[in-house]
Amino acid sequence: MMELQLGHHYLIISQSKFNSGTNMFKDATIEEVNVAVSHSYQAFQQYRKYSLKQRADLMRAIAIELELCGDELIQTAMNETNLPEARLRGERARTIYQLTSYADACENGDWLDARIDTAIPDKNPPKPDIRKTLIPLGPVVVFGSSNFPFAYSTAGGDTACALAAGCSVIIKAHPAHAQTSEIVAQAVHRAIAKNNMPQHLFTHIHGASFEVGKALVTHTLVKAVGFTGSFSGGKQLFDWGNQRKEPIPVFAEMGSVNPVFLLKEKLAQSANDIAKQYAASVTLGVGQFCTNPGLIIGIKSEALNQFQTTLQSEIEHIAPAKMLHAGIAKAFFEKRANALQQSNVALLAKTKLAADAISGEPTIAKVDAKTFIQNSLLHQEVFGPYSLLIECVDENEMLMVANHLEGQLTSTIMATPNDIQSNQTLIDTIKQICGRIILNGVPTGVEVCRSMMHGGPFPATTDARFTAVGADGIKRFARPIAYQNWNNDVLPDELKNENPLNIWRMVNNEWTKNKIA
Amino acid sequence: MMELQLGHHYLIISQSKFNSGTNMFKDATIEEVNVAVSHSYQAFQQYRKYSLKQRADLMRAIAIELELCGDELIQTAMNETNLPEARLRGERARTIYQLTSYADACENGDWLDARIDTAIPDKNPPKPDIRKTLIPLGPVVVFGSSNFPFAYSTAGGDTACALAAGCSVIIKAHPAHAQTSEIVAQAVHRAIAKNNMPQHLFTHIHGASFEVGKALVTHTLVKAVGFTGSFSGGKQLFDWGNQRKEPIPVFAEMGSVNPVFLLKEKLAQSANDIAKQYAASVTLGVGQFCTNPGLIIGIKSEALNQFQTTLQSEIEHIAPAKMLHAGIAKAFFEKRANALQQSNVALLAKTKLAADAISGEPTIAKVDAKTFIQNSLLHQEVFGPYSLLIECVDENEMLMVANHLEGQLTSTIMATPNDIQSNQTLIDTIKQICGRIILNGVPTGVEVCRSMMHGGPFPATTDARFTAVGADGIKRFARPIAYQNWNNDVLPDELKNENPLNIWRMVNNEWTKNKIA
Repeated sequence: MMELQLGHHYLIISQSKFNSGTNMFKDATIEEVNVAVSHSYQAFQQYRKYSLKQRADLMRAIAIELELCGDELIQTAMNETNLPEARLRGERARTIYQLTSYADACENGDWLDARIDTAIPDKNPPKPDIRKTLIPLGPVVVFGSSNFPFAYSTAGGDTACALAAGCSVIIKAHPAHAQTSEIVAQAVHRAIAKNNMPQHLFTHIHGASFEVGKALVTHTLVKAVGFTGSFSGGKQLFDWGNQRKEPIPVFAEMGSVNPVFLLKEKLAQSANDIAKQYAASVTLGVGQFCTNPGLIIGIKSEALNQFQTTLQSEIEHIAPAKMLHAGIAKAFFEKRANALQQSNVALLAKTKLAADAISGEPTIAKVDAKTFIQNSLLHQEVFGPYSLLIECVDENEMLMVANHLEGQLTSTIMATPNDIQSNQTLIDTIKQICGRIILNGVPTGVEVCRSMMHGGPFPATTDARFTAVGADGIKRFARPIAYQNWNNDVLPDELKNENPLNIWRMVNNEWTKNKIA
Repeated sequence: MMELQLGHHYLIISQSKFNSGTNMFKDATIEEVNVAVSHSYQAFQQYRKYSLKQRADLMRAIAIELELCGDELIQTAMNETNLPEARLRGERARTIYQLTSYADACENGDWLDARIDTAIPDKNPPKPDIRKTLIPLGPVVVFGSSNFPFAYSTAGGDTACALAAGCSVIIKAHPAHAQTSEIVAQAVHRAIAKNNMPQHLFTHIHGASFEVGKALVTHTLVKAVGFTGSFSGGKQLFDWGNQRKEPIPVFAEMGSVNPVFLLKEKLAQSANDIAKQYAASVTLGVGQFCTNPGLIIGIKSEALNQFQTTLQSEIEHIAPAKMLHAGIAKAFFEKRANALQQSNVALLAKTKLAADAISGEPTIAKVDAKTFIQNSLLHQEVFGPYSLLIECVDENEMLMVANHLEGQLTSTIMATPNDIQSNQTLIDTIKQICGRIILNGVPTGVEVCRSMMHGGPFPATTDARFTAVGADGIKRFARPIAYQNWNNDVLPDELKNENPLNIWRMVNNEWTKNKIA
């Protein structure tokens, strides 16, 4: 059996790795995948012609149906994922907000980057009228994540972005919450029916096996892939996508250790507060966030000792909690054990509260910077409530640590204005390895807004030029087309002279909502 | 010896394939490549911190130096490429326009897609201040093209975009015009020196061999690649880029046959005019444009007969002209012969004027639609003054042809308003395979402007989400970074409250140039 880690779980696995009885669905056969993609492509041919308003209406209708799923959906997700009720209610609300805010952005139309250069007939040679907008790529395969059963799964961020772009969507349900995924998919289909749209513009496929994912990504009619999960899973999809006869974009958001740099003056001022803040951040959601702070880097000092002491006493009193499924818990314990066995790595803090075999135990390890730099295993994510404190002898060594880190979703600087002033090279180095840089905060918590960048240099994602969160993520699934010399009446609405959609457009190099005379 | 077609020429070749005596430069060794990339990376670390205005000033200085190269540059390029003087003077002017217009766009700053969402402290949980801009990817390797010794080579579009984005550039000179490339590189270095910038932000490398290109693309410090040339060359670079431990974006603009659809009413009205227009377009620049119309698709009719007759008499009187180099001429003759040997393919027209062995002979072949659909060899580009007329029995068959085409840079529709009305499905199909769709014009001629899309679905390019022409091409070489919770004084200028650069920014979902109170 191949062990392919996809979405923080093993794809080909015995069902016992998941919570008992959750996945009663059979894997799709290759024939079923082929039929599904073919239907999705046909639905795409209709859906892509729908107006921005129609797409937005569908997305808002899905949001309403999700809300109407009520307690049944929450209960099912609780059973399948072990996530607590409040978290799941919050995550559903976030998913609804994503759908409605991306719907607003879709209708608003500025994401189309509409550009118009009007003709200059007396130029030599004459300059033709050229107008550019975005069109959808085609059917998009979305792999549901294990750690966000709503927000980055069936009707989550990737699905919302693809629908806004005008693409049809094929969901590969995450087998760890297949029933939850099924309920959400039914909600999506009710919204599609109520909007009289083609049924197959959204397709829900089960598949715990390697083969289903491969068949989807390598199908000639599939034109893009969205994925949130582990490095090995995302990288495999990326390779399949690029090895096709016609390569396709695979946007995989993968692992990240989200380093946190504790600068001297700030730490001296607030060691206790920062320790409490980070004890909470490391263990939030049993550490199962892609922005979990997995590395904390400080300089040997009295303040760092104080930070350690407080962090230790905080961690000791944080209760373990069940992880998403047995496979993730097993991986957590194995990777933690492996990290702790490395030479010069010491256990700094561990919860004193009792836990069962599938609960993540809040844990902090400690290592010196030299060892960290030399041992690449310590740079890898231990998915769960675990963080590694790296002690540097001085600022130079802290800079060396930064220089040895791979691409990250986020990096955080805890710093006073003086610290910022005296650590310009460090901060500048950190900017180059991450997609989001946080000052005096925690990386957990990813706002859904236009300014969000949730992505980063490889291996954090497979394409650092796009975000997976925020309406700018729509652009992952669209491409420009230029119309040269077309009559106004046969142009798409967003490019017509009279600007009937009333959107922002760049006309002859200036942004405007004005009509063209 | 491997035969890797790169940039419309064979990379590992005897120098005799090029024009005599043009390439007196030795290939860089792997050690030299490593040193060059290392220096480029160091220069990047300085250059990326320069302001938009400083980058723009450098680009304008390069434009001035190119102009100052005077006749020597034109003469050298004439000797190396066989392109006529007027064309080369025009191409240099275009290159200067690219540099200055992208410099304007760079300084203007709207390409940064700056986004600001201000904090909402009383939200639960509090919403932090988040601001997003673009930062450069790192050292970019640009492969000079054979067919545009200025505009898509050493100081061409890719180089201008990379410099605007804040990247350092390593040029792999095209061996068919190595001396021209050398003169341009010296001009770039004079501009760098005059602007007191680090010398190695621009590096010029010679390499006719496969190994030099591979060493550049696979070097860990190289972060992106730009290429204009053949399918096999571009695809090889794309594969190398993706097979790295850290994959990098490879933007390759490759082959395209740029289909032209002659709709019925339009053809009946203007058969002679269209034939004359296309005889000129097919043979423009000895057919050595990536937008050369390689397929012309019409419906069997009296008008199509008339079109053929005129096209034939036009082509017969167009003089052959020397192609870029001996290797390209050889490939033209071989591919033309191969196409003409296919069953049901007939020679329709050929110049009657005498040519030598390295001159491209204007040629039109003809085939029925059924044969075309079944024979994929006929879908491939014959680089040079060659086009294939495809005769369809009716509109259905024309639609079938459209449905069987691969991704293209451009497609053209020759149509009256009635034709457009009655061919909606056809036009809709064509939109899905190309990056630019032209009505009643010729595809040759690519305006340098913001609305241009020069790119298209694979195999026309390796990433249809970006353009290679126009200032939007800058975005190929940059990625977003979000600043969360940073003090105003330490933000980059484009994100500061007072908007010191006076650029367009999306603030709380609205485009504005206003300051933030």
